[in-house]
Amino acid sequence: MAVLGARGRMGSTSVGAIEAADGLEVVAQIDADDSLDLIAENGAEVALVFTTPDVALDHVRWCVEHGVHVVVGTSGFDDAKVAQVREFLADAPGVGVLIVPNFSIGAVLMMRFAAVAAPFFESVEVIEMHHPDKVDAPSGTAVRTAEMIADARAEAGSPELPDATTTDPEGARGAKIAGIPVHAVRARGFTASQEVLFGDPGEIFSIRHDSSTRESFMPGVLAALRAVADRPGVTVGLDAVLGLD
Amino acid sequence: MAVLGARGRMGSTSVGAIEAADGLEVVAQIDADDSLDLIAENGAEVALVFTTPDVALDHVRWCVEHGVHVVVGTSGFDDAKVAQVREFLADAPGVGVLIVPNFSIGAVLMMRFAAVAAPFFESVEVIEMHHPDKVDAPSGTAVRTAEMIADARAEAGSPELPDATTTDPEGARGAKIAGIPVHAVRARGFTASQEVLFGDPGEIFSIRHDSSTRESFMPGVLAALRAVADRPGVTVGLDAVLGLD
Amino acid sequence: MAVLGARGRMGSTSVGAIEAADGLEVVAQIDADDSLDLIAENGAEVALVFTTPDVALDHVRWCVEHGVHVVVGTSGFDDAKVAQVREFLADAPGVGVLIVPNFSIGAVLMMRFAAVAAPFFESVEVIEMHHPDKVDAPSGTAVRTAEMIADARAEAGSPELPDATTTDPEGARGAKIAGIPVHAVRARGFTASQEVLFGDPGEIFSIRHDSSTRESFMPGVLAALRAVADRPGVTVGLDAVLGLD
Amino acid sequence: MAVLGARGRMGSTSVGAIEAADGLEVVAQIDADDSLDLIAENGAEVALVFTTPDVALDHVRWCVEHGVHVVVGTSGFDDAKVAQVREFLADAPGVGVLIVPNFSIGAVLMMRFAAVAAPFFESVEVIEMHHPDKVDAPSGTAVRTAEMIADARAEAGSPELPDATTTDPEGARGAKIAGIPVHAVRARGFTASQEVLFGDPGEIFSIRHDSSTRESFMPGVLAALRAVADRPGVTVGLDAVLGLD
Repeated sequence: MAVLGARGRMGSTSVGAIEAADGLEVVAQIDADDSLDLIAENGAEVALVFTTPDVALDHVRWCVEHGVHVVVGTSGFDDAKVAQVREFLADAPGVGVLIVPNFSIGAVLMMRFAAVAAPFFESVEVIEMHHPDKVDAPSGTAVRTAEMIADARAEAGSPELPDATTTDPEGARGAKIAGIPVHAVRARGFTASQEVLFGDPGEIFSIRHDSSTRESFMPGVLAALRAVADRPGVTVGLDAVLGLD
Repeated sequence: MAVLGARGRMGSTSVGAIEAADGLEVVAQIDADDSLDLIAENGAEVALVFTTPDVALDHVRWCVEHGVHVVVGTSGFDDAKVAQVREFLADAPGVGVLIVPNFSIGAVLMMRFAAVAAPFFESVEVIEMHHPDKVDAPSGTAVRTAEMIADARAEAGSPELPDATTTDPEGARGAKIAGIPVHAVRARGFTASQEVLFGDPGEIFSIRHDSSTRESFMPGVLAALRAVADRPGVTVGLDAVLGLD
Repeated sequence: MAVLGARGRMGSTSVGAIEAADGLEVVAQIDADDSLDLIAENGAEVALVFTTPDVALDHVRWCVEHGVHVVVGTSGFDDAKVAQVREFLADAPGVGVLIVPNFSIGAVLMMRFAAVAAPFFESVEVIEMHHPDKVDAPSGTAVRTAEMIADARAEAGSPELPDATTTDPEGARGAKIAGIPVHAVRARGFTASQEVLFGDPGEIFSIRHDSSTRESFMPGVLAALRAVADRPGVTVGLDAVLGLD
Repeated sequence: MAVLGARGRMGSTSVGAIEAADGLEVVAQIDADDSLDLIAENGAEVALVFTTPDVALDHVRWCVEHGVHVVVGTSGFDDAKVAQVREFLADAPGVGVLIVPNFSIGAVLMMRFAAVAAPFFESVEVIEMHHPDKVDAPSGTAVRTAEMIADARAEAGSPELPDATTTDPEGARGAKIAGIPVHAVRARGFTASQEVLFGDPGEIFSIRHDSSTRESFMPGVLAALRAVADRPGVTVGLDAVLGLD
């Protein structure tokens, strides 16, 4: 494996996790001033990209051109960037690029299960809890979760969520994302937590994920690294890797 | 005991609970068309008032004038009404009137503990969860909880809650009540729940109360009925009855 | 619809739910002293069986012989009884019999999601919480959940759960069901709740279901009644009906 | 401040926290090979003792003899050791020794609130959750919590906890500590968590504490260091320091 952005927080944690994993090895650690040629020189067949958004796409292209499979952990790979990656791969049909917006297996399962459960309950709300240094609310994971729930309900023909609220002067009912209420808690002691609450008469069903360290992303990183060589072309998200599709 | 408003929801549930309780008995059930004289005729020493706000104050006066101790469960006894009750009692120093905004011992403990804990943590937020037919948000209990937390923090000289949020276009951060973030969830399956979340570096401390039936108010009703005769004058809230003052 | 065992607790709740549902109608309510002929006389195409275990199998046979689809809610339909139902159906290939051990959609989703998540986490434990009048521990749902988790882990080749406990004189670590730790809480205020806790370094993932009333089974009853006519032969469990298979 | 055992885990974390705290300063860091004279030479008025159980008592004596107030974080200060400390103080009436079995303010509040709430509910159970490398179950905090709950219920004349369990072949009902059911979960992802569940008809009341890092003990350490000089004699536990007595 080659790790690009090896001295960053996710990169350095990943280097440790890869070294500790059975059958995996880091042969090249690339950072800002290092040449990408080290990847090829050290015979890496798979690269893990955690470099900054401004250079990550170039790094992916270099890897594809050199026949190196890529797991992309850099954030911000939107539809436009994914399309560009697809172009890179036009001439390298055997190379796999796995773009992973969220390496947390727990978060991926939470979103997937939430989408499956969504049509079966009358009510649903999302509560996300993060440390108070976070500048944006709600979290990207909460937005994605709400969108997936809304899509699943729309597809199933679910009615609107019941809500008789007529008086809420201070906005206690929170945000509506794709029609789903989303609440953001900011409290010291949380790293990244989220709960999805479903309700029917006489029952509550909930799915919750609490993440407290970067370590919690490592199983997802390793699963991606192990799977990418067998998935030529572009894959977005861990779902396929986890067999959830 | 006499129960006023005996055919209402809280009144009728209370009649059952009193009859089932050791050493307590209902001797008079008064409703809209019944004469209050039944209270005296049946020798009730304590009255439980659940009549509507427009007549409850008159009922309290009648009881005080007839030397009957009163537990008031009717809502809306604000400072002005409490002052009136105090006047009624000027000529009846031995009579006790216990005004109880919330008969839920669990809710009273939650609020009290939240106020005690408030100065010890950097962060605090309140999440209340109710059925979706509720028209107002946040709940009265959540507002009271936030006020008690804010008072306790002010008294202790606690700093402002940390919150780096700069981007929250949809209002996911919820309401601020007395400076304390309050979130209101409305989902089928809840009756009345509330969680108070406290956070410090590396820890979360939480107090939660889930109430699913009117039955959950009965221990508070019985505790109030048992205590009122020994508490001449006006007492507001269950705290004193529970020994929490 | 015909409801057999219509005066029992589940039966009578179901009658109300069916009457309230769009497009469904109860045409026959059968109880202990009533003739099954009422089912045919009233033209019921689907029967819901909540009669006692000693007669339920006979009732299923009668329905199959008369071309009436059946949803079976009576408990205790083990492999032997299912085999008998299969025999009844040999001569009625168009008739559907749906045997449902658990009508709670929330419980079914919890078990299914737990099985899917099981291979992805290092640790897993089950905590079930019921009212203190329950005589057996752990609950049947907890046992079934643990078995499904153990099966999923075995199939994925998951290692044993980590547990360094050497000192536990009072048995605080609870039961081991198929190798999965299961804890049973008995406390007033719960009806039937269960939480499945998964853990990995730096993260906790949990799925929880709280059921407080029989009403919570009604969406499952209605889904079964709506689906059974389109599912000839024997089907066990709600999973297929919910599209989870 | 002097910190004894400064290179240990709690000692080194405390050194950092003291240096970061307003108005506090570390003037001496003592470890295995260092002379205690450094405490006096550097003018420390308060010592924080995290040395090993075999030497900690000697260190406390030295401090008391030299007029230095002591906060003891070393575990294992049982009644016998506390009695010895009391003897040391016989000739030093102005010196304070604060022995703290648990520096977690959250855990102390949890135990205290649990004891206050105990007489008000019909049911109570304790669930503690720790990492799977822990060798003993249940945790010391869970045992102490159960004892405090049992004492509070005994004092209030509470009846026995309701429990109809007659069948529990695998021990799912967990341990009974002082008559209170205690359950121990061991799962990767937890550091030290505990939930106390109270139940009454129609309601659940719960108090929960999740601790994920040693950092969470620092507010308790600082509160103890700030308070000890004003508390001559022996004080056991943080309760008095927190104003909970």
